[in-house]
Amino acid sequence: MGGIMNMYHPTRIPIGSGFGHKQTPLGRRAVHRVRMSLREEGPSVAIVGVTGAVGQEFLSVLSERDFPYRSLKLLASKRSAGKTLTFENRNYTIEELNENSFGDVDIALFSAGGSISKKFGPLAVEKGAIVVDNSSAFRMDEGIPLVIPEVNPEAMEGIKVNNGKGALIANPNCSTIICLMAATPLHRRAKVTRMVVSTYQAASGAGAAAMEELEEQTREVLQGKEPTCNIFKQQYAFNLFSHNAPILSNGYNEEEMKLVKETRKIWNDHNVKVTATCIRVPVMRAHAESVNLQFETPLDEKTAREILSNAPGVVVIDDRAANLFPTPLEVSNKDDVAVGRIREDISQDGNYGLDIFVCGDQIRKGAALNAVQIAEMLL
Amino acid sequence: MGGIMNMYHPTRIPIGSGFGHKQTPLGRRAVHRVRMSLREEGPSVAIVGVTGAVGQEFLSVLSERDFPYRSLKLLASKRSAGKTLTFENRNYTIEELNENSFGDVDIALFSAGGSISKKFGPLAVEKGAIVVDNSSAFRMDEGIPLVIPEVNPEAMEGIKVNNGKGALIANPNCSTIICLMAATPLHRRAKVTRMVVSTYQAASGAGAAAMEELEEQTREVLQGKEPTCNIFKQQYAFNLFSHNAPILSNGYNEEEMKLVKETRKIWNDHNVKVTATCIRVPVMRAHAESVNLQFETPLDEKTAREILSNAPGVVVIDDRAANLFPTPLEVSNKDDVAVGRIREDISQDGNYGLDIFVCGDQIRKGAALNAVQIAEMLL
Repeated sequence: MGGIMNMYHPTRIPIGSGFGHKQTPLGRRAVHRVRMSLREEGPSVAIVGVTGAVGQEFLSVLSERDFPYRSLKLLASKRSAGKTLTFENRNYTIEELNENSFGDVDIALFSAGGSISKKFGPLAVEKGAIVVDNSSAFRMDEGIPLVIPEVNPEAMEGIKVNNGKGALIANPNCSTIICLMAATPLHRRAKVTRMVVSTYQAASGAGAAAMEELEEQTREVLQGKEPTCNIFKQQYAFNLFSHNAPILSNGYNEEEMKLVKETRKIWNDHNVKVTATCIRVPVMRAHAESVNLQFETPLDEKTAREILSNAPGVVVIDDRAANLFPTPLEVSNKDDVAVGRIREDISQDGNYGLDIFVCGDQIRKGAALNAVQIAEMLL
Repeated sequence: MGGIMNMYHPTRIPIGSGFGHKQTPLGRRAVHRVRMSLREEGPSVAIVGVTGAVGQEFLSVLSERDFPYRSLKLLASKRSAGKTLTFENRNYTIEELNENSFGDVDIALFSAGGSISKKFGPLAVEKGAIVVDNSSAFRMDEGIPLVIPEVNPEAMEGIKVNNGKGALIANPNCSTIICLMAATPLHRRAKVTRMVVSTYQAASGAGAAAMEELEEQTREVLQGKEPTCNIFKQQYAFNLFSHNAPILSNGYNEEEMKLVKETRKIWNDHNVKVTATCIRVPVMRAHAESVNLQFETPLDEKTAREILSNAPGVVVIDDRAANLFPTPLEVSNKDDVAVGRIREDISQDGNYGLDIFVCGDQIRKGAALNAVQIAEMLL
């Protein structure tokens, strides 16, 4: 990627937008005005894993949303420590994450994998920081709020920067967030009793290197070469495969069980029945999900469309005449989750079922944006 | 494609196999021995739409399966008429399809679109030919058998070349065939009452030009250019979208309703409930389907795996430890439909549900192979 200085460019013009990301996977979309959110009264913020795809998106989202901060600490592994990075016209030196990183931190946004979160998350909390953790390390722990701000903000009630107390809040998994952004408004009206989900998941969920691998493999296949498989053990270009997460004893993979378990926790409904099949498709940075819903009380599609049209963070793209519905490319680099193909499920009688198709940016609402929205609620 | 003479090459070595097809989308996989099936006692065979992706696959499959024929007539539109094509070491001149094409034909394999089938199918039957039609024109017509040989051979009972009577048999839609190859053996044991299907459909379903468009668009996007959209109105490279079939008044698209209606007809079960969401993914020639099944009587996953392992035309790829399951690339150019991710649906109690993931070559078992298998049953 040619030096860490090139990583964050809020004003760079996007090229190769056909990917739904800039030519350099780590490059960022153009932000039309650069806001300066460095303010005395803001919290001190740390980003753990700043060199990753989600870490980079944290910066982008913080800047776009004018998130106030008194100071910013950029943390990464030893490998990246010492490199500098420009953000909102200031130069920052990336520091190596260690036990002493959190002494003066109010809010720490973590996205450096589960083992880093497990080791350093509790340390940061001990030092008084509020950790918003993007890994799966603490999501299912009792007492840890698992929050989608549009869905269950009440789960983090009372957790505020000004309390002076550390806390940990978990960011749900990307496919859960994207699914529940669309399913929850309908659930509130008619109570979802069962949900059958099939996902179409982008490379970005496996990180920036996976996006690069997809791009590189595609070039190779087009040139008639053998594709190089490093991140995934099978060809990804012009192919798809069952999600690479480990398979559990019940035959579901971990990604699928996240959808099952996280939905129950977020909806605070331990009876909701969920099954999921998670598949990786050769798309760069946005997930799609085909969701079949069963309801406790009838819900017709007209009402469903109306509910979804008014749901915060959701946009309805459902033009049957033009055959235009959500696509991953269209939602790439966008905040909103798009929903379409809203129709009464003909395999269920009496308006007790709906089929919908949902797309959302995996790095943005599926990760960084949701975490920053959580951070906003801490102020 | 550089001249029609280059289209059919049963002995050409495949290059660029990363696509799951040869570098030239119309090129054929290598056939290791070329059989000569020209025999006096065989039927006279016509192929309608021989220059299309499925038409080409008809030739490939006929040759590989040593299908006997007394004569072979290659029919296409005016555009291709007069060109020559080599098949099993003989040169054929492609003839223009017209009202007089079927005077001496025993079996006509049609794959030239619904309107051609509607116009010329009944004409061929009148002349005494048995038409195996790959279009959707007659599939739902009463009295027209809709056949997957492994599933409902009884539907075409009594239809034989030696009868001297014309007949029309419909080949089901590709996604129906691939789904039912896996679902039927389970249905026979435990009776499927409801099925929720989400598809991951390849370019080939929209023809050879769509495969070329996907390849070309991908090159363009990798070069940072705007992708050329001719066949589909939106970007296909590194993207996916709701199937391009027209949307009906109930909100389902025609592709989805084929799965719903054809399943009922093929299973001769008008009560089976099916819902489907059909999506095109940037894959060349094999479809994948995520299928959630509900049964009338319990069926555990061990029994299901055993049943599928013994099902004709089905191969089980279900290695949980190695995380290896069916992929479209793996089944490309293969006859068998692959099934994996076989697991008890945790959203249903008491073994009344299973989730499976199925992949099958769209051009082969989804079209040409199934039609040739039907033709074999006519002898």
